[in-house]
Parts: sequence; structure tokens; C-alpha cells
Amino acid sequence: MQMRFDGLLGFSGGFVNLSKESLEEGLRRELSEELGVDITISEEHHVDACFSPTSSLSSSSRLILHFYVKKMEEEEIRKVEQMASSTAADHGQEVLGMVRVPLYTLKDGSGLATFLSHSFVGNARSQLINSLQRFNLVPPQELHKALSRAMEINSQTAMNLQVVMT
Amino acid sequence: MQMRFDGLLGFSGGFVNLSKESLEEGLRRELSEELGVDITISEEHHVDACFSPTSSLSSSSRLILHFYVKKMEEEEIRKVEQMASSTAADHGQEVLGMVRVPLYTLKDGSGLATFLSHSFVGNARSQLINSLQRFNLVPPQELHKALSRAMEINSQTAMNLQVVMT
Repeated sequence: MQMRFDGLLGFSGGFVNLSKESLEEGLRRELSEELGVDITISEEHHVDACFSPTSSLSSSSRLILHFYVKKMEEEEIRKVEQMASSTAADHGQEVLGMVRVPLYTLKDGSGLATFLSHSFVGNARSQLINSLQRFNLVPPQELHKALSRAMEINSQTAMNLQVVMT
Repeated sequence: MQMRFDGLLGFSGGFVNLSKESLEEGLRRELSEELGVDITISEEHHVDACFSPTSSLSSSSRLILHFYVKKMEEEEIRKVEQMASSTAADHGQEVLGMVRVPLYTLKDGSGLATFLSHSFVGNARSQLINSLQRFNLVPPQELHKALSRAMEINSQTAMNLQVVMT
């Protein structure tokens, strides 16, 4: 995932004008801008579509979020990370950095739980959780525990912020 | 800053055994492991020292946290980011990615505020805030507003997690 210009965590992507390009072409263009790599995307990678939770309910042109998942080997991901910090046009502008998601739970309960306690844009956290379930990347029970622990960590952050403020 | 193996945001660094190396030598070694670069650190970069908030109060060997700040040009930072994802030994292990801190506030109030709402290790959030004040990187009033907004974002995250859980 990436740290966005607005300080939120999110997935790479962006707006696509369907009168100019297909969804997959648009995503490929966005990935090129944000990651500095040319990644082929096809309809088979499409897993979900929904109305944007942040778009106005009354607006006549409601935004639709399309979510794609593509499996890659660690070596390919490492290449993407390297390109993202060297050739990507958006690096340091729209994108403040790429981060891997910890798909494990350490002895003290940190790892996935801590990551899920951060602030995400729109429905990015749900998309992440749904994908972890859909592709069996984390056992359902562990995922449930992680979410429960994420709420505790979120409360600790609230207290911590209260202390810093005073 | 970096996304750590435990899912928390923090600064680069680590344990130093003073019988084997000086604080500055130790930090240089840690930066080399985590960022893949050789950065000279001297005593003039030392800005703060305190007992670790996470170390046991009753322990006879309480941990002391030393904090260093070094000013770098954007070009140097870009080099560090590139090396961090290519040559750093800890990349993908101890470190899940490097991120820049947004030192601005966008029209919708996001930016620094959103970043400060994330989950940080130990006193990393305080160290960040103190450094922004100490080096006049963000006006005090803007910093105070950002912290106040960070608390609101933290509450939104709590509600969002509640929804995902059910």
C-alpha cells in the first residue's frame, strides 16, 4: 500500500474517464505514474465495485470504486518498490512512500492488528480485509482477533494524543 | 519515517551496546542496516534523551532513548529512499517501507493531522512533534490545530473499525 499526500494509507489508483480509456488502461496509467512501472492489468484482476463512501449521496454523478488484485512474487514487488522511489513521477508528490502490509501476528499481538489501526482513505481498510479473506491470506479467526486488537490500539492512540495535546 | 515490522510507524534506529560502540557509531550502523546508506552522525545531531516509555519501571537496566536530527536536502533524501528499497539488509524484514511526513495542511484539514493520527511506536509521535517545534518546521498554531484534528480522525477510525467488526 502507500502513504498518500493527505497522510492516509491507501491503494494505488485514481480517476478514470471512460470516454478516454478503459478501466484497466486507466489503472495501468495510474500505476505507471505512482509506481513507475508498467503492470499489465486485465478484467480477471477485477474483484469488486462499489459506490465511493466519500462521494455525495445527492450528486448525480456518483463515483464508483473498482478494486483490482494481482498476485506478484516478492522479487517483482521489490522491483516495484525500487522503481516507486526512483522513476515514479508522483513520488514525493501524490505518494509519500510505499509500505508492505504485515500479514502476521507477533507474540505481543502487534503486526497486522497494528497496521489495521492506522487511518485509511475511503474504504481501503475494508478492501484490504476483504482481500485477505477472499484469497485466504490470513485465517478468519486471526483476522477477527487482529481487528479486535486494532480497536484497542486505536484507543491507546486516542489517549496518547490527549496527553500530547495537554 | 518508516513502517516497522510490527505495523507501527517509527524512526530508524535501534539498540546500542556502549561497551562495543559509541551512540553515534551505533546509530550509523543501524542506519546502514535499515536504510542501506552510510550517514555520518556526530554529537551535534543529538537533540534529546529520555527513559523509554515502554521499558519496565522496576527493571534495574532501564532503556534510554537518544534522539538525533540531521538536516538533509531533498536530493539526499531521495537517494536514501532509493537505497532503502534496494540495498538495505532490513528491507522487507525489520522495515516494511520508508515514508515522508506531510508537513502541510490541505484545504480539507488533512495532511499533517492525518499523519499524526496513525499508530506510532513508543514516543515517536512526541519526538516528531517536538522536532517540528524545535526546528520551526510547522507554526505552533498549525501544529496545535493538526493535533486537534488528529483526535477527530482517530475517533472516525474507531467508528470505522466498529463497523468492519460487525
